[in-house]
Amino acid sequence: MIIENVTIIGVGLIGGSFALALKEQQLAKNIIGVDASEINIEKALALGLIDETLSLEDAVKKSDLIFLAIPVDATVTVIEKLMGFITSDHIVADAGSTKLSLCNALQNHPLRKRFVATHPMWGTEHSGPEAAVSGAFKGKACVICDKENSAQDALETMEFIYKKIGMHLVYMNAQAHDLHAAYVSHISHITSFALANTVLEKEREDDAIFELASGGFESTVRLAKSNAAMWVPIFKQNKENVLDVLNEHIMQLKKFKSCLEKDNYDYLLELIEDANKISRIIK
Amino acid sequence: MIIENVTIIGVGLIGGSFALALKEQQLAKNIIGVDASEINIEKALALGLIDETLSLEDAVKKSDLIFLAIPVDATVTVIEKLMGFITSDHIVADAGSTKLSLCNALQNHPLRKRFVATHPMWGTEHSGPEAAVSGAFKGKACVICDKENSAQDALETMEFIYKKIGMHLVYMNAQAHDLHAAYVSHISHITSFALANTVLEKEREDDAIFELASGGFESTVRLAKSNAAMWVPIFKQNKENVLDVLNEHIMQLKKFKSCLEKDNYDYLLELIEDANKISRIIK
Repeated sequence: MIIENVTIIGVGLIGGSFALALKEQQLAKNIIGVDASEINIEKALALGLIDETLSLEDAVKKSDLIFLAIPVDATVTVIEKLMGFITSDHIVADAGSTKLSLCNALQNHPLRKRFVATHPMWGTEHSGPEAAVSGAFKGKACVICDKENSAQDALETMEFIYKKIGMHLVYMNAQAHDLHAAYVSHISHITSFALANTVLEKEREDDAIFELASGGFESTVRLAKSNAAMWVPIFKQNKENVLDVLNEHIMQLKKFKSCLEKDNYDYLLELIEDANKISRIIK
Repeated sequence: MIIENVTIIGVGLIGGSFALALKEQQLAKNIIGVDASEINIEKALALGLIDETLSLEDAVKKSDLIFLAIPVDATVTVIEKLMGFITSDHIVADAGSTKLSLCNALQNHPLRKRFVATHPMWGTEHSGPEAAVSGAFKGKACVICDKENSAQDALETMEFIYKKIGMHLVYMNAQAHDLHAAYVSHISHITSFALANTVLEKEREDDAIFELASGGFESTVRLAKSNAAMWVPIFKQNKENVLDVLNEHIMQLKKFKSCLEKDNYDYLLELIEDANKISRIIK
């Protein structure tokens, strides 16, 4: 299978890496980039991520597949607009980290079946077209949500593409996706952002951080470099689940605090041994 | 310089990796391992990390250099004991993640000058002799504390060794070390332990964690696999500094919580942009 024309909306880290993967696997002949940023489009053209750029309407009308990789709030707005340009031959998919708001927004759309709600679980802390990398999605999971609401051909095309670029597929409904994403991905980002702010607040000597930062600190704080414009809408759309897990996390930290305050080192040992159990899941 | 006999007390991740580094750089001829665990000694012998094993007293008396890489509470006990066996020709150094308790414990010892308080800032989440790796300390910082309290020859020997195995040296007093270590290293571990407990508590479906864990989650939670027996004494000895930074961290997390609860997404954006500033320090 080779798709004549694919439009990628948002030619940054995810969109750019997806474009590279499509080309590498010979899944797309011509890739049209659409981006709110003229600079990003220029970079994406220069980097060879995309072949051309068109207006949203022209791009959609020319394409067989439209893939959105923009902040999740913009996704809702842009998808509602572009659904006005598509026919029952188009396929629309997105890569957003939240799924419920988008699926709810589209639920009564007459062409809802042309849309496949997906979340390829890959990313780095970098952003922009220059952050796009080759082989990005290999070995990672791609969540497909509410598959019964997509047309069989649209679903199968997206399944084929994701498998071809090396992903394995996981199915769940949009609500379950957002819950699990909050637990496994979104909270890690809040932890990391808050850790960076903690260290920047307490440690006024940049040199000390720089000199003493070991691999451990670096890996814990890595996600704190993640793009703010991308993460605010994710937290906003997934507010209830994020608050739920954030409250639990603050409670867990308070247990460590209480152990230290009360010199209860037996319980501290227990807490750490409990945490060690994560290695039964994350090798 | 090649040292005839080096005793390494604690032949786990750090002691074992230090032994490998000494051999690789031809800094030691014979390495004597001492460890409370008979199994660890057997493993260290089998892996070629050490050449022989002796009782603490015999090992110390035979050695020119004694290097301790055991939990920081055990370090205080064992060093007080072994200082009874040394002469003014011996050099004693440790690799502990806290320095003030140990320096305080030794401050009035008649042979204090034979001791060099050091913290090679390298580690992984793994432990035991089988976790020892070659080239471990390369490119990392080694903190040397209260150098004015060590004899010139002892200090210079340790400086020579650490530089030879690829480390750069940072000097500070023990109190400053413990403060900076709390800010830059110890809090990362608490964050990661608490994150693991959060996720294990909320996410009852192991499969969901396993399937959905992206690189981001893995890197944030990696330190949660760290050895409990090693970390409890670190937190205990550095309790005041750790509590101080932990309180700040909980406060920072509460800011994220409050933003979500109050739908204050402008401030949330600001918090994340503040966190992004960590990239001016951690590339």
